Amino acid sequence: MHQLGVVRRSIDRADAVACERLAAFGVATVHEAMGRVGLMAPVMRPIYTGARACGTAVTVLLHPGDNWMLHVAAEQIRPGDLVVAAVTAECSDGFFGDLLATSFKARGARGLVIDAGVRDVRELTAMGFPVWSKAISAKGTIKATIGSVNVPVVCAGALVHPGDVVVADDDGVVVVPAAIAAQVADAAAKREALEVEKRKKLASGVLGLDMYAMREPLAKAGLRYID
Amino acid sequence: MHQLGVVRRSIDRADAVACERLAAFGVATVHEAMGRVGLMAPVMRPIYTGARACGTAVTVLLHPGDNWMLHVAAEQIRPGDLVVAAVTAECSDGFFGDLLATSFKARGARGLVIDAGVRDVRELTAMGFPVWSKAISAKGTIKATIGSVNVPVVCAGALVHPGDVVVADDDGVVVVPAAIAAQVADAAAKREALEVEKRKKLASGVLGLDMYAMREPLAKAGLRYID
Amino acid sequence: MHQLGVVRRSIDRADAVACERLAAFGVATVHEAMGRVGLMAPVMRPIYTGARACGTAVTVLLHPGDNWMLHVAAEQIRPGDLVVAAVTAECSDGFFGDLLATSFKARGARGLVIDAGVRDVRELTAMGFPVWSKAISAKGTIKATIGSVNVPVVCAGALVHPGDVVVADDDGVVVVPAAIAAQVADAAAKREALEVEKRKKLASGVLGLDMYAMREPLAKAGLRYID
Amino acid sequence: MHQLGVVRRSIDRADAVACERLAAFGVATVHEAMGRVGLMAPVMRPIYTGARACGTAVTVLLHPGDNWMLHVAAEQIRPGDLVVAAVTAECSDGFFGDLLATSFKARGARGLVIDAGVRDVRELTAMGFPVWSKAISAKGTIKATIGSVNVPVVCAGALVHPGDVVVADDDGVVVVPAAIAAQVADAAAKREALEVEKRKKLASGVLGLDMYAMREPLAKAGLRYID
Amino acid sequence: MHQLGVVRRSIDRADAVACERLAAFGVATVHEAMGRVGLMAPVMRPIYTGARACGTAVTVLLHPGDNWMLHVAAEQIRPGDLVVAAVTAECSDGFFGDLLATSFKARGARGLVIDAGVRDVRELTAMGFPVWSKAISAKGTIKATIGSVNVPVVCAGALVHPGDVVVADDDGVVVVPAAIAAQVADAAAKREALEVEKRKKLASGVLGLDMYAMREPLAKAGLRYID
Amino acid sequence: MHQLGVVRRSIDRADAVACERLAAFGVATVHEAMGRVGLMAPVMRPIYTGARACGTAVTVLLHPGDNWMLHVAAEQIRPGDLVVAAVTAECSDGFFGDLLATSFKARGARGLVIDAGVRDVRELTAMGFPVWSKAISAKGTIKATIGSVNVPVVCAGALVHPGDVVVADDDGVVVVPAAIAAQVADAAAKREALEVEKRKKLASGVLGLDMYAMREPLAKAGLRYID
Repeated sequence: MHQLGVVRRSIDRADAVACERLAAFGVATVHEAMGRVGLMAPVMRPIYTGARACGTAVTVLLHPGDNWMLHVAAEQIRPGDLVVAAVTAECSDGFFGDLLATSFKARGARGLVIDAGVRDVRELTAMGFPVWSKAISAKGTIKATIGSVNVPVVCAGALVHPGDVVVADDDGVVVVPAAIAAQVADAAAKREALEVEKRKKLASGVLGLDMYAMREPLAKAGLRYID
Repeated sequence: MHQLGVVRRSIDRADAVACERLAAFGVATVHEAMGRVGLMAPVMRPIYTGARACGTAVTVLLHPGDNWMLHVAAEQIRPGDLVVAAVTAECSDGFFGDLLATSFKARGARGLVIDAGVRDVRELTAMGFPVWSKAISAKGTIKATIGSVNVPVVCAGALVHPGDVVVADDDGVVVVPAAIAAQVADAAAKREALEVEKRKKLASGVLGLDMYAMREPLAKAGLRYID
Repeated sequence: MHQLGVVRRSIDRADAVACERLAAFGVATVHEAMGRVGLMAPVMRPIYTGARACGTAVTVLLHPGDNWMLHVAAEQIRPGDLVVAAVTAECSDGFFGDLLATSFKARGARGLVIDAGVRDVRELTAMGFPVWSKAISAKGTIKATIGSVNVPVVCAGALVHPGDVVVADDDGVVVVPAAIAAQVADAAAKREALEVEKRKKLASGVLGLDMYAMREPLAKAGLRYID
Repeated sequence: MHQLGVVRRSIDRADAVACERLAAFGVATVHEAMGRVGLMAPVMRPIYTGARACGTAVTVLLHPGDNWMLHVAAEQIRPGDLVVAAVTAECSDGFFGDLLATSFKARGARGLVIDAGVRDVRELTAMGFPVWSKAISAKGTIKATIGSVNVPVVCAGALVHPGDVVVADDDGVVVVPAAIAAQVADAAAKREALEVEKRKKLASGVLGLDMYAMREPLAKAGLRYID
Repeated sequence: MHQLGVVRRSIDRADAVACERLAAFGVATVHEAMGRVGLMAPVMRPIYTGARACGTAVTVLLHPGDNWMLHVAAEQIRPGDLVVAAVTAECSDGFFGDLLATSFKARGARGLVIDAGVRDVRELTAMGFPVWSKAISAKGTIKATIGSVNVPVVCAGALVHPGDVVVADDDGVVVVPAAIAAQVADAAAKREALEVEKRKKLASGVLGLDMYAMREPLAKAGLRYID
Repeated sequence: MHQLGVVRRSIDRADAVACERLAAFGVATVHEAMGRVGLMAPVMRPIYTGARACGTAVTVLLHPGDNWMLHVAAEQIRPGDLVVAAVTAECSDGFFGDLLATSFKARGARGLVIDAGVRDVRELTAMGFPVWSKAISAKGTIKATIGSVNVPVVCAGALVHPGDVVVADDDGVVVVPAAIAAQVADAAAKREALEVEKRKKLASGVLGLDMYAMREPLAKAGLRYID
């Protein structure tokens, strides 16, 4: 459950090696490798084309229109982290801009995933600081109410624990629980290896119908060909 | 009406020459040339800036979360076709990614228009395989239920018959019935010719008010100028 | 209140110098400098990345599906103006395309902000004519009903008077009342000057917690650190 | 395809007996009986709780903000018809109110399904004239542009031919092609008969797991029970 | 423009007689009588069926997630007023519940129109205190930032000045500027008188085509009848 | 994290007494008593006015378009439970209708909360079986893919553990972790007791400004009164 008013300083980050291995895969591959769970809602979009990031989650729970806890979160960032910010209610305000990005980057953050809005996208793009958000808005926020840092949060429909691996690219954002990061990296590698072969066959004109032996199950399911 | 469980192998594709002629025009021009019908809803967006495609429709009717019929459709693609995929209910899952795109491309497809989600957008962009969709989502789909291929479908609010010409660019997607493809190409050419002249006049500072002789009808409609 | 059937020819444009000064700032900075009012809703997005514009508002009130008044507005444009178009009801049609843009540009317009749809985005991008809209749609419009030009309008939730300064960039669109343009430019300059210093500190690793002296108020608000 | 500027006077209405039989079933039952096709999008909602209607479609194709063709459609209504109105582009204006409802009712119409907005809902409710729409809006419409009556239309994602049976209730709206109305009524009756038995069993505490013999396929699919 | 931090105590309320006369008409009628301007967006819905209210506007400008100014507004309410609340950014939180409603009612308020969320709808319904909002949400708000009372505000796309007449019913919400309240009431009365006659004719089976003499203009516009 | 393919039979349900006590409060009160966390998104609406329910959560994780696990869940229901269903991706299909409701009711379920669509709302209303959903859709679902029962799920943005107390009414849905159910009931009772007194004062005309002693902090925050 969400806890308010708490900052957890010591969190169990996913194994760094596993995290780096996951960074090599796309979100779709990781999502498949996990059995199709852990994906954030597709409203979460990168602020620039080609954005990619992978890091261990420092989580933040914010209130609508209030970004105070992002400053608190900055102190908890270690190199290789990626900040994941949830809000207690729907809000599209611009909670994050180039000043906070400068601070996050100085602390070693690899990016931000926020279930709200962001601003200064031109500057963030120029800095190469990737952000996934559901809105872009110049509307600023206040600093009046405390939330939490490093508690479990629900961000864009996905549950994120501090220390989980978060992988994000043009296809969206997926969360890999810290405990299974290595295992998911293995599965992703296996999947990707298989796809190389498949891609070659399909490129040569072999049909998926044949490559996956689908003709029989389709006929059994009742598919009829007519002219 | 939608038919389920049917693959039609022989379809009447629009005349190839008319199709190539239509490829030269933008969607807005073609839409105007048709009398402002046949446009898909504006939620349909290209996955990359500058995407353009024009082809004869191979249609697919899918079920939510199930992309089995896209594999069936691949076999029906001929060079110059463009696949149009409808879903029997609202769904934003990623039905299509780089493996299917490899297969579609090998068959000669010019692109995909899908009233759902797509994934692997980085790879699709690198391949230059254009897709128009209403969502981008890494969420994969299953292969369990049969739909249809080459039946009339409703895609993003537009009715598409197999063999119709589909024109798509940054402005959206428009469907030209096969039977009137040549006639629409004629009308589009005529329209575009007229626009060259108009554009020149407007660029020189002539007002639309004068070029279109609007001052009198505006006054009749009651427009008043005040200072 | 909205007035229908009226074109005001003489409007009080904001001071040209103040307008040029405001052009140097981003929307987020201007919005902060105004005390966080005057922002349009975040559905308003530029049609191409990197679009920026600042100008004095020529306002237009349109009816859904009818762009007649944009032609009337063209005549009222002076160099340095930016057209702001509102619609009396929700509509995503493409009210504006490359012909009107050619005309607007010839008159010296710096861009368009429209609470509706736009088309010909490829051509508009090539022309470098920036537009902020809430939709892209090839759907054309008719010329049948009169609205107004240079009356106060509500555009995407913001009230715009003719002559106000409108600043638009990747972060959205903000409206600065003509009467306070110089004062807002001053405040924006002051704010930006302060940010240079802050950015430097944050880049060096100083935390916002310390730079803004937040630790004590956070503790007072009840924030607890745990391990 | 949509045709503009045409009113078809003679249409093939579905068999009246089949239509009356379909009126006895709910939308969900009819939809299942058709094999899960023909359903309009769930944005289509009745204007009052408990609204139910079933009739043969008189179709109308409107332009955004223009309800002229609804007056033309009135003349084509026969007792037992239900009007289905589509719009060439997204629009939430109130195209229909109590005056048109009075006229439609006098002609024997059983209701209206409109992919747009409606107004005077208090009066329509008092009259017992059911409407399914995607919006309620007091915004009136003009009478300037011609559309069509009794051409095939796409309404809320469903293709409707004049004469098709349209069934609507609290669950939404489904379209039954005229040619298969009797066959669908048979299938619906069969389905409903089966459900009586099932409902009795389930009410007595029998589980669907047992009634549908799902335990074995679930185990085969890999479902594990833990404590 | 929005002003922050200001409470205006003396406002010019619309003439009480004109206000009472307007209360007799539906929103659609008033909107037509005004020439189709002044309507709020159709997302504004009453919390219960059959809600109706008409009063002079006491306006409030709120910040997202902060309802402090509603308490300030309460003091400015006089019998016959209706509170209109705008928010400086999109927010669906429940700013208003049964306690505030008790206070507003005690002051003589006739209802609330809020471009945000509301809660305690069961209690508000039981009290017969009508509210029009764009969301229902149990999410409470804080009291930390000052906005304004009785400044012009933009609420759901409509500009509202303090003292304007606001009419609301099942069809939505319309704003009548105080200065023209009597004139709009006259126009509404005239319109309604005409409709009585029309309704009678239409009920007797006369077609709008004939009553409005539309056949000729339709033919001129090119409408063709086919069999 | 979501687990797939698992049914947990033994769960720790919240204390029955605490659950009954919570049933006496509205969602807004419970949400406040918890410190404003645990609320589902406001898209979750009851299918009929006045619906209320409170029970211990049996959770279900479904796939889009597939309701197989609802049958599996039925067996795990005990009297006093309320089923909470999440879906691995956005889907508005009608996963639940009167047959499943009959089964759930026979098992003692108090209602259903589902982050998707529901159908047979007329029958469910007649049965008095309350459902909170984000859509109503007649679109049926298949039974092909396994999900889970009684694992932690994210439903409409809220994290729900099996056994948690779920309170739902006209204002929405809130989740109370089992471990703090009694404590939250205490806080809710205290809050409600205080509100009785406040309501009385406000009804007598006392202003919140005075009752909450807001005048001084408002003045400090800079609020100015003008005439």
